[in-house]
Amino acid sequence: MDFKTELKIYQDIVNKELEKYLRKDECIEKVLNNAMEYSLMAGGKRLRPILVLATYKLFKENIEECLPYAVAIEMVHNFSLIHDDLPGIDNDDFRHGKPTNHKQFNEATAILAGDGLLNNAYMVIANDLQHTNNEINMDNINSNHNINSKNCIKNLKNLENKNNPISYVEKLNKKIRIFNEFSNAVDRMIAGEYIDTEYEGKQVLEENLEYMDENKTGALLKLSVRMGAILAECSETDVERLTAYAKKIGLAFQIKDDILSEEGDEKILGKPVGNDKKLNKCTYVSKYGLDGAKAKLNELIEGAIKDIEIYNENAEFLKDLAIYIKEREK
Amino acid sequence: MDFKTELKIYQDIVNKELEKYLRKDECIEKVLNNAMEYSLMAGGKRLRPILVLATYKLFKENIEECLPYAVAIEMVHNFSLIHDDLPGIDNDDFRHGKPTNHKQFNEATAILAGDGLLNNAYMVIANDLQHTNNEINMDNINSNHNINSKNCIKNLKNLENKNNPISYVEKLNKKIRIFNEFSNAVDRMIAGEYIDTEYEGKQVLEENLEYMDENKTGALLKLSVRMGAILAECSETDVERLTAYAKKIGLAFQIKDDILSEEGDEKILGKPVGNDKKLNKCTYVSKYGLDGAKAKLNELIEGAIKDIEIYNENAEFLKDLAIYIKEREK
Repeated sequence: MDFKTELKIYQDIVNKELEKYLRKDECIEKVLNNAMEYSLMAGGKRLRPILVLATYKLFKENIEECLPYAVAIEMVHNFSLIHDDLPGIDNDDFRHGKPTNHKQFNEATAILAGDGLLNNAYMVIANDLQHTNNEINMDNINSNHNINSKNCIKNLKNLENKNNPISYVEKLNKKIRIFNEFSNAVDRMIAGEYIDTEYEGKQVLEENLEYMDENKTGALLKLSVRMGAILAECSETDVERLTAYAKKIGLAFQIKDDILSEEGDEKILGKPVGNDKKLNKCTYVSKYGLDGAKAKLNELIEGAIKDIEIYNENAEFLKDLAIYIKEREK
Repeated sequence: MDFKTELKIYQDIVNKELEKYLRKDECIEKVLNNAMEYSLMAGGKRLRPILVLATYKLFKENIEECLPYAVAIEMVHNFSLIHDDLPGIDNDDFRHGKPTNHKQFNEATAILAGDGLLNNAYMVIANDLQHTNNEINMDNINSNHNINSKNCIKNLKNLENKNNPISYVEKLNKKIRIFNEFSNAVDRMIAGEYIDTEYEGKQVLEENLEYMDENKTGALLKLSVRMGAILAECSETDVERLTAYAKKIGLAFQIKDDILSEEGDEKILGKPVGNDKKLNKCTYVSKYGLDGAKAKLNELIEGAIKDIEIYNENAEFLKDLAIYIKEREK
């Protein structure tokens, strides 16, 4: 299958899954739900959830157990976009060719829609943990608040005796680990965004620029592949190898963003070009010039592809995704 | 012990615990951490964490296992205050007698500090779940990412044989339940705040005003007592009884807030009086007048005290707390 087709299939899976979480009920806060939906379904590339799924697929076929985490990370990503666009931060009017959330609704609604999406991500994770926990306590599924350890042990033994290939305890272990990694990555993303606002109009050291981007963009991209890998129960060596790949494409993604903000096509990008310059932002382009930034971008993508060579044709999609990050026009 | 002394002891416990979570390290995002600390340690009443602890103490003595949840709910409360005070929402300049977060720092920092506190709350919960999970897998504590179900069963059996009074599995069950209730309550709080912004300058039905307050203030207060009760492993009847108490003091708290905003003492309150009127907000005072609001307040506090009569002298503090909510001057 060619890359574009596979990408589209993944995007459709993610969009279909996100749809399930949209709230359509009539309630007083309906417009707030609409505002969350507006940004969530505004046509993003779905890079983060796709990385979760594609990484998982390196090791396992049935991606179902990844879906809540794919949804959660896309919610967090959209929360960050809504807040970054606010007048108090980047003051952007357009995103994905449409008015930004505070332009479409109003500032109060945009602040709260961002808050709501961040919190929704945790609702999704909490719900999945509860679901896995209920599976462990299967005998007690109808009264899931009154479980005792004896029944639990009995259930665990039953699972074992049946030679059930999936250990629910291991499932819970890895999901609690992911909840931790998730909350830490979001913490880093927020720190990165803060540094971005602090660096506006300043010249900064290369290491500080990298520290900013590793947090701002890198943290969630690393989290994406790590969630896919951990959910697929691969080895720690694999987790670290894929983290190295994600670290490189994360930085590459940011550099490409900086390049597009300088020389992209407004019509394709769906937002004005030249804002970084206008705000006197410290970017890879302002620091190394367009050619310097492009050289660094190439180097990172080559490195990322090397990181996953070991998976051969299984990693074809992840390899093409790295190239796509370099070559994308929006 | 008299109420004020006990309240002070609880406040000191909460403040000491919060201190542990403040980040003092030198890093590029240090000012963001300072901004989170600024609001978190600005001298709030600590009502929510104290409700967690005092409810737990109705049933169990050693409050240690409550502390992460007391911290998490206070973080969420402060996140909501920072965002509510923003120019895009209530545009308040003072809180607890000090400049609001965006006045002390700037708007971008305040938005991100609020985001950071919300996310920090989940980091605290995630960390506590990981800790409990590690206890279950005690034999594997040094390699907590590589746990298999056989060891887990062995550990569970050991725990059982030792007649250990605490079942770690039950601990995990109740904490996953709390994570769910927590994220749902925060969702309700955000919805309530949204409705508050929507109702500005409008006359609304009493049922809608109650719906708003049940979400905006009520959701976290209910969550507080529910977390304390669930952690203490009391019966579902107790959980529901205490929820009824919390629902009443939550609404009472909001009505008292409305009254103070109308006739409070600015010096004691630490913020200007009359803002609700100026913004033409729909409150209990604007709807029923001062006397009407006070009558409703009295009725609610009497009802709340009745709800917990069954616990006799054990509930003395919770009873006094209800009276305190009615009589507080800030």
